[in-house]
Amino acid sequence: MKKIVLIPDSFKGTMSSLRICEIMRDQILLHDPQAEIISVPVADGGEGSVDCFLSAIAGVKITSSAQNPLGEEMQSFYGVIDHGKTAVIEMAACAGLPLIEDRLNPLVSSTYGVGMLMKNAIESGVDKIILGLGGSATNDGGCGAAAALGVRFYNFSNQEFIPAGGTLTEIDRIDVSQLDARLNKIELVAMCDIESPMAGEKGASFMFGPQKGATAEMLPFLDEGVRHLGDIILRDLGKDVRTLPGGGAAGAMGAGVAAFFDAKLKRGIDVVLDTVHFEEIIQDADLIFTGEGKIDAQSLQGKVVIGVAERARLANVPVIAIVGDIADPIEEAYQKGVTAVFSINRMAIPFSEARKRAEKDLSLTVGNLMRQYKGLGL
Amino acid sequence: MKKIVLIPDSFKGTMSSLRICEIMRDQILLHDPQAEIISVPVADGGEGSVDCFLSAIAGVKITSSAQNPLGEEMQSFYGVIDHGKTAVIEMAACAGLPLIEDRLNPLVSSTYGVGMLMKNAIESGVDKIILGLGGSATNDGGCGAAAALGVRFYNFSNQEFIPAGGTLTEIDRIDVSQLDARLNKIELVAMCDIESPMAGEKGASFMFGPQKGATAEMLPFLDEGVRHLGDIILRDLGKDVRTLPGGGAAGAMGAGVAAFFDAKLKRGIDVVLDTVHFEEIIQDADLIFTGEGKIDAQSLQGKVVIGVAERARLANVPVIAIVGDIADPIEEAYQKGVTAVFSINRMAIPFSEARKRAEKDLSLTVGNLMRQYKGLGL
Repeated sequence: MKKIVLIPDSFKGTMSSLRICEIMRDQILLHDPQAEIISVPVADGGEGSVDCFLSAIAGVKITSSAQNPLGEEMQSFYGVIDHGKTAVIEMAACAGLPLIEDRLNPLVSSTYGVGMLMKNAIESGVDKIILGLGGSATNDGGCGAAAALGVRFYNFSNQEFIPAGGTLTEIDRIDVSQLDARLNKIELVAMCDIESPMAGEKGASFMFGPQKGATAEMLPFLDEGVRHLGDIILRDLGKDVRTLPGGGAAGAMGAGVAAFFDAKLKRGIDVVLDTVHFEEIIQDADLIFTGEGKIDAQSLQGKVVIGVAERARLANVPVIAIVGDIADPIEEAYQKGVTAVFSINRMAIPFSEARKRAEKDLSLTVGNLMRQYKGLGL
Repeated sequence: MKKIVLIPDSFKGTMSSLRICEIMRDQILLHDPQAEIISVPVADGGEGSVDCFLSAIAGVKITSSAQNPLGEEMQSFYGVIDHGKTAVIEMAACAGLPLIEDRLNPLVSSTYGVGMLMKNAIESGVDKIILGLGGSATNDGGCGAAAALGVRFYNFSNQEFIPAGGTLTEIDRIDVSQLDARLNKIELVAMCDIESPMAGEKGASFMFGPQKGATAEMLPFLDEGVRHLGDIILRDLGKDVRTLPGGGAAGAMGAGVAAFFDAKLKRGIDVVLDTVHFEEIIQDADLIFTGEGKIDAQSLQGKVVIGVAERARLANVPVIAIVGDIADPIEEAYQKGVTAVFSINRMAIPFSEARKRAEKDLSLTVGNLMRQYKGLGL
């Protein structure tokens, strides 16, 4: 094997994609020290996404002050790639759950800090922003971020305010005339892997509110707020994001960025593949290793492995998926371009035990694949 | 892949080696219809061994009457291969546990029928007998088989008798002068994968007596009988088989056949490899699939996978081991010639669940290996 491309998703609950790339690389080089290895740990838009991009392609990490979800000043960060032309922001870097773990409150938590990071990036001169939606502690429909960039929200007393999850219902009107004009020249792409609309049973509040600290009583109220925001946006901005797939991502920030900033919501894997210029990378590759924690009917719907396979097939490069569990019949995976799938499970033991040894088992599996290629003269 | 050799051990408790060969063959042909496949299901000396040999190389199955372990007439069988020159007898075919499952009694059960099968084979003109030791319901040290072929046992009243597990202590002397003389010209190889000596704590009675119906009270008595047999053999035949490794196989028949018939005890896998002319088979092979239920420190001690690997390495043919569990560090397996090891486990579930889907999981694993080879242009 002359050139191998590594592009795994994380194994949820066991290993990050960055760690998986390291383990794969170590095993490959152990058995084939001359191999050229390109690592593209897949960012999913959540915590760690900036590091993933910076590991996959050249760039720098910028430290920037911002507000945390509760409005307190903090040191946050974002990444700049493409020779300073593209910023990568993970909203979790200033609006993430771990930042206020013991003080979760979706009634008051805000994405204002995310807008501050965007503003900082705009001022640095980028012409594209990749915004990772994921891991948020907020349910404000992105109103905080919008406010930080000039959008004005007024309540029924005609007073300007910055709506949070608990005050979305108080929005009387929205004025976007003062929105930072520089945004017009900036391409904004939001990474978003969920299909939830902003409101309703499968919307942001009911689906993800509980993990952000919402009590059962809060949920209908939060949902009502998001629904109200959708209505006002339609009336005042002329944009209907009420049923937009992915609008429910990150406490309905998916809908917010689409409405306020004209952001495009894209599958994370497609953003990654485009950003790293995947087609160029694999052009002369002999093999691609991808993978995920569990390959099943759901993951066959446009997640990492399939996203990679669909493009690799066009380039005629074999794709080996190395996964935790193979949970369902996966005939469709082969049809979409996956060459073969191997599970890292090496013992018939329950997941509670298997997860503790996931790193070792992944290492063994990659090692055996490499031993095999060597034995076959590849 | 032009030619693939299949030589798996059984997966104990889930799949026979014959069944594994079928599953592997089906998957290989599905993905590579032109492949030449040589199947060598590995006989372990126990039940099914004759069928394994007859599946691996040309031969016929001979029906022959014999006595079951309790002396009742039954229709038994053995195999003849090598153009009529070699007989393959599995002692389980007339002295096996399932034949008297509800009437187990190691005090009276006998290997007399095994001697009858041997006699029948001798009369058919073979010059070699392969005797599978395994799955026996007996603890008679092979005295029954010896008696059927002319060895005479006398008790302290100078009366001839046929000793069984419960009467070994009554042997006063052994007379081999009337042993069937045709045996002198016959090479006798006993397949034996255990190292137990005939008597003692790790001997036939204590180790395997309980599964043959021996109560806790019987065990010391059975052991004493076997020990006594060893002493008398030493005195009357001038052969010391008391510490012979494998002498404890099949109710100490291992020691008996070595003493009475000059049989050589050999590892089952070596007998199989020699008999099928393994070196010739793999000479032009591209790949070997072997495997076993669990690869661990114990299986690295001369069992199927390692036996295959040691010879394949000399012929420079890659060996892929497809196993149930990979239980231990298996660095030694690679050193001995195993190219790579893959587990059929595809889900993190306990063995009680995994065993039910072993056939499907084996099929999936072989299918993925074949898809992979195809994708790599092999």
